[in-house]
Amino acid sequence: MADNYKKRYKKEKNNVSEDFSVPSDRLEGRNPVMEALNSGRTIDKIYVQAGERSGSVLKIVSICRDKKIPVIETEKAKLDKMSSTGAHQGVIAAVAAKEYVEVEDILAIAEEKGEKPFIVICDEINDPHNLGSILRTSNAAGVHGVIIPKRNSVGLTATVAKSSAGAVEFTPVAKVTNLARTIDMLKERNIWVAGADMSGENDIYSQDFSGGIAIVIGSEGFGISRLILEKCDFLVKIPMLGEITSLNASVAGALMIYEVVRTRNKHI
Amino acid sequence: MADNYKKRYKKEKNNVSEDFSVPSDRLEGRNPVMEALNSGRTIDKIYVQAGERSGSVLKIVSICRDKKIPVIETEKAKLDKMSSTGAHQGVIAAVAAKEYVEVEDILAIAEEKGEKPFIVICDEINDPHNLGSILRTSNAAGVHGVIIPKRNSVGLTATVAKSSAGAVEFTPVAKVTNLARTIDMLKERNIWVAGADMSGENDIYSQDFSGGIAIVIGSEGFGISRLILEKCDFLVKIPMLGEITSLNASVAGALMIYEVVRTRNKHI
Repeated sequence: MADNYKKRYKKEKNNVSEDFSVPSDRLEGRNPVMEALNSGRTIDKIYVQAGERSGSVLKIVSICRDKKIPVIETEKAKLDKMSSTGAHQGVIAAVAAKEYVEVEDILAIAEEKGEKPFIVICDEINDPHNLGSILRTSNAAGVHGVIIPKRNSVGLTATVAKSSAGAVEFTPVAKVTNLARTIDMLKERNIWVAGADMSGENDIYSQDFSGGIAIVIGSEGFGISRLILEKCDFLVKIPMLGEITSLNASVAGALMIYEVVRTRNKHI
Repeated sequence: MADNYKKRYKKEKNNVSEDFSVPSDRLEGRNPVMEALNSGRTIDKIYVQAGERSGSVLKIVSICRDKKIPVIETEKAKLDKMSSTGAHQGVIAAVAAKEYVEVEDILAIAEEKGEKPFIVICDEINDPHNLGSILRTSNAAGVHGVIIPKRNSVGLTATVAKSSAGAVEFTPVAKVTNLARTIDMLKERNIWVAGADMSGENDIYSQDFSGGIAIVIGSEGFGISRLILEKCDFLVKIPMLGEITSLNASVAGALMIYEVVRTRNKHI
């Protein structure tokens, strides 16, 4: 088990930014974390002190495994820095600023409105400002819901909520264990899955977005991961006419999201 | 004179964010600042300790007045915080990470390329990340140059350069004393000036952007200032279909900038 969460920690620690700046969405200490786990409150991640093997911490790790909550082994110095109380006892939980929904809930909203599904998928967006901005743009564009993966993604932290300028209250977010499987499910429901990538054959302006659609936005720096890229029904590229070779993730996402708005409303 | 820069200071201190975090684009102390002023190096602003009336500081303020460099009266405690050497002697200068160009240079670039001018005007953008992002998008979209006002705007600081992902090296930026007068000059050159504003009559997708164009992007929170709004040839609005009522400044700007790209390239 220890090896297992060590492996996860290794994978996650390469992420560009961790959202350590906001204490308001954290729970610290063994009892508060255990209580939160038992109450069913939504927990994004749990940070556990490296080498900590006390009974209650092992029990927390075990519950996390059952509930598929990522456990990140963290050096004591880092936990101390994250801690606002100074009494973390080797465990800090990142709780969500807003409850998550299920993908089915997002599809139900589209159906209720009598609209073709319009979904945004964030593939490994780790910068809370980017996720917040994407939520804000998604709300403005009438997106029915946003899907993020459980691992290698920032969750709905207080920073994300703030950057979303309130959109987090209105636009539902689903957090899924396996993004590739979720994409398969969307495709079975006749939803087209479109990714923005430089290898795309068509530019965004010559693509048909009129059906049910899910827009995949990749991470700043790395783009959409290979597995997800292969799952996309089509890849489109945004014209790049200058010297630099990429756009900010939330800007690239906004251009794709609004291209759906433009074509759906038959604007020319 | 003291009253004069007090007034300016009052106006500027209401800005949402000051870019105090990057010491690499600062000069501290009377001699270094005076030397920079005399060398003709581009200085964005000078922060002067409140109440400081020594001869050399008054001389610096006087040169700034001649060169139209904003002087911001700042409390000692704030200067101490900004200082990286601890020896600011009551004067800190914010120097540009990149040299500015003239508006004429931007127009010359368009002519050289045989393209209709494509300009972005930032009206009081104070967030360095937003200005950096706008520079990045501008470069990607083939914008010939960006215009910012001398006052009430973040300059080309190191944070802006970083957020631009390198675009600051390629896309020229002009800094003007009087934005309204610059807009008049652009209009005389047959360049259309378009602002994004909720009061716009047309949405961006039904507007003709095929001529020479300058896109005005307003500040986060306040939008385009009234004087500049009145100067615009036309105002367009971005469809807002959700609960929130505004987009991030760099996202709204990107949508307008890329709408020019789309229509100029006759994409449907």
